[in-house]
Parts: sequence; C-alpha cells; structure tokens
Amino acid sequence: MKKLVILGSTGSIGQQTLDIVRTFPQEFQIVGLAAGYNMKLLSRQIEEFKPRFACSADTSSYNQLPTKTPSIPMEEMVCQSDVDLIMAATTGKVGLLPILRALENHKAVALANKETIVMAGDLVTHTSRLYEAPILPVDSEPSAIWQCLQGENSEISRLIITASGGPFRDIPLNQLKNVTPTEALKHPTWNMGKKITIDSSTLMNKAFEVIEGHWLFNVPWDQIEVLVHPQSTIHSMVEFADGSVKAQLGPPDMHLPIQYALFHPSRRYNSTIPRFDTATHTALTFHPLDRVRYPCFDLALETAKKGGTFPAVLSAADEVAVDLFLKEHIRFLDIYNIIEKVVADHNCKADGSVENILLADEWARCRAKEIAKG
Amino acid sequence: MKKLVILGSTGSIGQQTLDIVRTFPQEFQIVGLAAGYNMKLLSRQIEEFKPRFACSADTSSYNQLPTKTPSIPMEEMVCQSDVDLIMAATTGKVGLLPILRALENHKAVALANKETIVMAGDLVTHTSRLYEAPILPVDSEPSAIWQCLQGENSEISRLIITASGGPFRDIPLNQLKNVTPTEALKHPTWNMGKKITIDSSTLMNKAFEVIEGHWLFNVPWDQIEVLVHPQSTIHSMVEFADGSVKAQLGPPDMHLPIQYALFHPSRRYNSTIPRFDTATHTALTFHPLDRVRYPCFDLALETAKKGGTFPAVLSAADEVAVDLFLKEHIRFLDIYNIIEKVVADHNCKADGSVENILLADEWARCRAKEIAKG
Repeated sequence: MKKLVILGSTGSIGQQTLDIVRTFPQEFQIVGLAAGYNMKLLSRQIEEFKPRFACSADTSSYNQLPTKTPSIPMEEMVCQSDVDLIMAATTGKVGLLPILRALENHKAVALANKETIVMAGDLVTHTSRLYEAPILPVDSEPSAIWQCLQGENSEISRLIITASGGPFRDIPLNQLKNVTPTEALKHPTWNMGKKITIDSSTLMNKAFEVIEGHWLFNVPWDQIEVLVHPQSTIHSMVEFADGSVKAQLGPPDMHLPIQYALFHPSRRYNSTIPRFDTATHTALTFHPLDRVRYPCFDLALETAKKGGTFPAVLSAADEVAVDLFLKEHIRFLDIYNIIEKVVADHNCKADGSVENILLADEWARCRAKEIAKG
Repeated sequence: MKKLVILGSTGSIGQQTLDIVRTFPQEFQIVGLAAGYNMKLLSRQIEEFKPRFACSADTSSYNQLPTKTPSIPMEEMVCQSDVDLIMAATTGKVGLLPILRALENHKAVALANKETIVMAGDLVTHTSRLYEAPILPVDSEPSAIWQCLQGENSEISRLIITASGGPFRDIPLNQLKNVTPTEALKHPTWNMGKKITIDSSTLMNKAFEVIEGHWLFNVPWDQIEVLVHPQSTIHSMVEFADGSVKAQLGPPDMHLPIQYALFHPSRRYNSTIPRFDTATHTALTFHPLDRVRYPCFDLALETAKKGGTFPAVLSAADEVAVDLFLKEHIRFLDIYNIIEKVVADHNCKADGSVENILLADEWARCRAKEIAKG
C-alpha cells in the first residue's frame, strides 16, 4: 500500500486524486489531507478516507468539525515517516514550503501545483536532485512529456507543448477588454480549478508550463515551442535527437495523469477513465500562438528567463491579479497591465533562496494590490 | 563498430541503410551485401563499402563484376561470427531462410522484409524468442509502435496503425478496374519499392502491418485497429492499459526508422533526416477504413487468422499477383480475385513448419499463375 498525503484535497486535482484512491482501495492509504476553506467537503473526505492527520487554511472552522482528526501543519504532515508520496495540488504559493520540506525528507512529490515551479523552479529542482526525491509531473502537458520520455535516454531536441488557446481564442481582439470572469471560466476543453482556468484564458498557464518544462526536464528555453491545438487531444510532444517525435494523447481528463503519477512506472486499467475514441477525433489542428492576443505569454517567459526573484514576482502578481479579476475588482486586460507593472518595478535579487523568494512574493502581492487600487 | 550484413542492399531500404552507414562511418562496418539483379548498383556499393562478402540473385553477372569480392549465399553471410546485425530488406519470401538462420545464430535482425513475418510470423517470432535474438522493426508503423513501447512494461490495450489510404483513396470505385501500374506506383506520401507501393494501393500492405503488429508485439487481433490518416504524419499509436495513448510522428521518410533500428536503444543526431515542421502540419485527419474499396484488407486478415500454412499462401499469391499486375498481365482488381481464389483452393496444413510453409508457398505461386492464365 502506498501512503499518501494530499495537499489541496478539496480542490479539483485533490478530488480527482481521491477518485483514483477510491477506485484502487487496496493500493493506497491516505495519511493526511490538507484543504483550504471548503470545510464541508473536507469533513466528508475525512469521514470516507479516515486520514491520520488533516488540516485546513480555515483553522477555526476546522476545530468545529464533528470528526476529531488531529490537525498538524502541511510541513509536518509531509514528513511523517511512513508517507511515500505527496500529491501537491494546492494553488499558488502555499505549496512551496511543504513541497521543499517533503523533498528534503526524500519524499516523492506528485506536482500539480505549478506555481511552485514557476516561483522557485531552480530551488525546487535543485532540492529534488540533492535529496534524490523525485518530482512526478501531474499537469497534463508535463505528464505527456514525461510519458514520452519513458525509456529514452537520448537528448531532447525540442518540447512541443500544446495549448487549447482558451475561451478567447476566436473572439475579436477589441472585445477582450469586456470579457467577464464567467466567460473566462468557460474553458473550451478542460474542466479545472478557477485560478488555472483564468490563467488558461490569458495563456499565462501555457507560459507556466514552458517554465515547468524548462525546469523539470532540463530543456533550454529556445528548445520549447508552444502550438495552439484547439482539440486538446495531443497533450504535448517531444522531439528527440534523431528527429523522431513522440506525442501523448487522450481525452482532456485529469484522472489519467493523476493516476499515472500515483502508479508510475506501472499503468493500471481503470474503467472510469475516458478512452481515446478514433471515431470522434477526425481532425487534429495546429496553429501558431497569437502573441498579440496573449501578451501575458511573452511577458511571463521574459520574466522567468531573468531568473533570481523575478519568477516569484511573476507568479505572485499573477495570483493577485487573477484573484482581483475573479472578484470583479479589475478588468480582464488589467491582469496583464498589473503583472507588467509589478515586474517592471521589481528590484531583483539574483540569489533565488527561499527567503528571497518569499520576500519578493510578499512585495509583489502588495505592489499588485497597490497598482490595482490605482 | 557495429558489423552489418544487408540483405537487399540495392533496394529502397538497402540503399537508405547505406545512407545511414555513410553518415556514421565510424559506427558501422559492412561485412556483407546481398542484392537482387541491379548489378551496376551492387558494383558501386562494393567499391564504396568494401564488404568481405557479397552475392546477388543474378549469379552469372556477379562473376563478371570488376571487383573480386568472394560470393557466399545469404544463409552463410548472416552467420559470420563477427556479424552483429542483419538488415533484412529483401522483398518477398527470399528473406525467410536467411532470417531464420540469422536468428538461430543469435544475430539481431532489423526487419524491413514484412513478407517474412506474414508468411511465417509464428515460426519467426518463436525462433527469435528461442535463440534470444531480437527482431528490430524497420517498417515505419511497427517502428512507431516499438518506439512508443520503450520504457513501458504494462499491457498494450490497443494498437492503432495508420494508413495513408494509398493513391486510390479518393477515386470513384467504378474506376478502380482501369487503374494502371503507373498510377498505382504514385503513392501520395511515401517513396518506396514497387512491391510495397502496389500493396499500399490495395491496402494489402496495411493488413500485413496488422499481422506484423500481432506477431512482433504479441497483441490479439481484435486489439489492432487501422485508421486512415492521409497525411502519413502519425506513423502509429499505442493505447496502454490506463487509456493513455502514445504516438510517434514525423515526415514520411524511412531513414529515421532505419537509423532507429541500427542504433537502438540510442538516438543520434542526423542532419540529413527531415524534421517535423509544426508550421506545415496544420491538420492531421483520420477516418475509418473503407472495406469495400480495399477488399484485400479483410481477405488478408481473415486468411492470416486461420494460421497454419494459410498466411504463407496469402503472401505468395500476393507476390505473384502484384508481379503480374506490374507486368500488365492482369488488371488491378484481379490482384484481389487471384489471391481470393488461391486462398479458397488451399488445402491448409495446421503445422506451420518451415518445410510446410515453403511447400505451401510453391503451391500458391503455381496456383496463382494458373488462375491468372485463366
């Protein structure tokens, strides 16, 4: 039995991870569940999976739960000696310290929380190597790349990351300024959490995946290409030294990459995972990214490439801007404007230590809110 | 240095194999070259690659070649103690005995000659296992499958083999009876030898690849699907137990699968191999196989599934029928008619021993010629 801790158990990836655990009750045991503010769902999850520990961001409500499960912080939960694997499925920066702690304790980390890699890619992958603690990608694109890399030991010559283009792929550019959170949350192919869905509408999410690809697979920036693929069937491709390209494909459903990370290197039959139907996938189309439509994409990559504390500032400013947009405090195009200003104002520290990253993160959040207030 | 024997060195795959050898002169040494009737080209190849042995189907012309290279039969050539790898790139049944002999001598066989697997799939794969001599697929579809299987140790749930549909994919059915060898030799995407190009126009070739898939990868018949994919970009796909699908793709060029078999499990940069260009591959389309247009496909699979000496009869009848069509002795639709009659007339032996296979092959060739004569 594999013993799991799930960080972000009530979020989209957390819930789908528990679907897999439910399908394979003989294979997994839940040691710990960490949630945000959805106390009702956390309470049901505790009843069903009987973890040894749980916790939530909302600590006062936690103490009033009917189930009396000991609460310990995420950083402690991930270090329990019997834990085999951490599913890191929180959103935003909250995952950083628990993930670093898990890696330092030689625990395997299934990584769905891509902001961690965006804000501290160098630090996190360095820690993973130093403590020989593997990072298992969960996001569908890095998972596709990881699957394509199995059994290959030659150089990667190119990563081709596919992008659906999000809900605003085809609307006239001059209408972008008026789009609402409700419209932005209607992703054409994927059903995901709110933060990542908004990031998909700006293509910030795709830039984050390029950053993930760079750090997780050690691929130079200029060997990572993004291709718009509206059907979201091919999840990504890898070109090898000899020119051969491998792709991983399937219906847009996160259960598969989650299950792959949980069972890696094995694969297990699961009747609840939708199958690739050749009768319905009659055309897969591809076109280049429209850089004018998605200015966040270039902004994010330019910022990430600068290194130091810049990537942390990028991630923090995006987190604040998306939150303000969801609350309708700012408009859609302000997401870019705010991030761009925060990045421009940042006084970068070249040393991307955890302390500098957390300070830069704090600074960027304050600065983003100030800029939003006007 | 890997020491090679090339069977069929003057054919399409043989020449392209020598292209790879030419690109990596430090990596390969040619021990033997076996050709058919193209004495001019064989002579040039002998001059350039200086093999220790050579031979040709045309023995009398061989003796008049200016270069005095000792001639030994293919069966002896493949067993030379220093030989590491045989490229089996002959067409038709002529490869069977040398391939069996190579495997019995624990030599790795890069297999481009699919008729061998069609006529004696059970025997050849059994021999490969018994003598622990690997068969390395060279054909682009089995190579794609093989590449997708690297590093995977879970069950295959489905093979999806792609087919261009050949030159007669879109012509009205009632015009099929009038098509000429010249038209049939104009393959829309691949540049290949004559036999395989005609087999592609009838989709016999695709049935042969299903048979290859069945034997080489040990996949049950009903888990192999064929999908028409006019662009020939995705060379084949594998679905695994968990529903994940991997595909291998690239421009239609045989140098890549040849090089992959020669260097496996490594991949090497080769500037002469064309690269997958995302700007030109803007749409990949798929549709089901039209069973009325391609009656050879079902006929071949039904025959292959019967086992025993039936597959050998199928392959032999096809070889004769294609040859007669190329010589304009029969018409296009007669290819099917002749094979169908030969198969119907065959008195099958359940024991697919090499003797029975060769007898059935001889019988089928005679019978096919008789039927063609009317």
